[in-house]
Amino acid sequence: MNTAIEFLRRQIGETAIKSPSPLMRWMNPILLEASEGTLSFQYTIKNEWLNPMGKLHGGIIAAIVDDTIGATVFSFGEPHFYATINNTIDYFGTIQAGEMIIAKTVVLKKGKQLINAQCEIWNTQNNRLIAKGYSNLLKTDVEK
Amino acid sequence: MNTAIEFLRRQIGETAIKSPSPLMRWMNPILLEASEGTLSFQYTIKNEWLNPMGKLHGGIIAAIVDDTIGATVFSFGEPHFYATINNTIDYFGTIQAGEMIIAKTVVLKKGKQLINAQCEIWNTQNNRLIAKGYSNLLKTDVEK
Amino acid sequence: MNTAIEFLRRQIGETAIKSPSPLMRWMNPILLEASEGTLSFQYTIKNEWLNPMGKLHGGIIAAIVDDTIGATVFSFGEPHFYATINNTIDYFGTIQAGEMIIAKTVVLKKGKQLINAQCEIWNTQNNRLIAKGYSNLLKTDVEK
Amino acid sequence: MNTAIEFLRRQIGETAIKSPSPLMRWMNPILLEASEGTLSFQYTIKNEWLNPMGKLHGGIIAAIVDDTIGATVFSFGEPHFYATINNTIDYFGTIQAGEMIIAKTVVLKKGKQLINAQCEIWNTQNNRLIAKGYSNLLKTDVEK
Repeated sequence: MNTAIEFLRRQIGETAIKSPSPLMRWMNPILLEASEGTLSFQYTIKNEWLNPMGKLHGGIIAAIVDDTIGATVFSFGEPHFYATINNTIDYFGTIQAGEMIIAKTVVLKKGKQLINAQCEIWNTQNNRLIAKGYSNLLKTDVEK
Repeated sequence: MNTAIEFLRRQIGETAIKSPSPLMRWMNPILLEASEGTLSFQYTIKNEWLNPMGKLHGGIIAAIVDDTIGATVFSFGEPHFYATINNTIDYFGTIQAGEMIIAKTVVLKKGKQLINAQCEIWNTQNNRLIAKGYSNLLKTDVEK
Repeated sequence: MNTAIEFLRRQIGETAIKSPSPLMRWMNPILLEASEGTLSFQYTIKNEWLNPMGKLHGGIIAAIVDDTIGATVFSFGEPHFYATINNTIDYFGTIQAGEMIIAKTVVLKKGKQLINAQCEIWNTQNNRLIAKGYSNLLKTDVEK
Repeated sequence: MNTAIEFLRRQIGETAIKSPSPLMRWMNPILLEASEGTLSFQYTIKNEWLNPMGKLHGGIIAAIVDDTIGATVFSFGEPHFYATINNTIDYFGTIQAGEMIIAKTVVLKKGKQLINAQCEIWNTQNNRLIAKGYSNLLKTDVEK
């Protein structure tokens, strides 16, 4: 087990105050599960995260997708940072203020330079898929 | 000129405290330009918006893309809300903490039910394209 | 069971010469499996389908994704045509001339107006994911 | 001017029978314009390219997007091949059998390893945007 995944496993059940991502510290999800290449987080929806219809804003869903995928790439414990090349998010449903959501990531392909990772956003009862995102990331030469 | 675009034009040079989007009120950009189907906003990067490398987080760029496109659809002054079907963001460069960015939207296609809108993220000198996003939105039957 | 899925099931093991899609008749895959919302096809790679590196062209993979997703929507037996709003394809590997590929589709979400469907492209040994595509489709008012 | 763009310029007004892409030779468009990073092609729609509604198949549009973007990357005359990481196509309209279309490409960003290129599909009167595609490509270590 690499040190990154060891670090993540110690955070299970905790909020994200020790995350290296300032955005994740602000969004402050609880880490539910952590293995190399797959993570699960629970988010409590803040009032600032709503759209004009009073539902969770698609832009925040996109931010969660990108941020949890970043953490998933981190879970491999590699010495270099990865940069997001692109992400695509498909939206399937809405979620109310006051509810919580679960973000579950998985890596579809890990090549020499490229990683493709995906993130599903579910309601906490796990019976409604809210959105799904897909990202490609490229290994940079910036060391951690 | 519809009442939505009149409302937006009165906000030019102002922050977004009157926006119907709670997310936009929190991100609080300054509206620079507003015409039906095309808007321009300036954002000051907050510390909570950074990634682990200390640059603007791709997830925040995605949130800005989705939120400014939402405002652009609003600029048509139609009686119904639109829901985002999907968005795709391509990332081209990074931007430092303390810098500002400009988000410029344009509508490529406005059909009976669907709108395709795009958003470019530039640095303020307007010589570096940071990211570009593309969204499809569907007219809902929810009235404003 | 609707008549569309009955029609498809009778084609299992056959080439696509009876397909309502002229493109599918030309690409002429063998239908392997068919249930409502999920299909599986086998394609033999033609010489016209190669890229300058002598591998299966990404554009042909995209065509297969879109065409098999169209057939998957057809499998619901609805009276109206659906139009593709967008599709996204992520590429993970290459495949040689002379090899065969399997395209497997699944519907992630079927709403009142929208369908989200996905298609994976595998080698025939089923141990290498070549590409994955994601499409959103909108119900039209054009009757079949 | 590099030798690739010189080669392309000599093909202006000609069909694609000399293209290094077998798919392009089969689709056989006429090259209309060629500069480094931007090309324009005219395609005559074949009967095999139709969908069940008798319009140009979205899968063929996707193939044209990917193939013309490949040719656009070729126009830089670099010694290495590029591989498509992903492409996204947004569809805006339909086009009939018997009509022709124009595919116009442009490179948005050319970095050290990555290229982002886009392709618009227009009718020949140039007043109807049929589709728009966006691709990211990565330089490989395979030499031409």
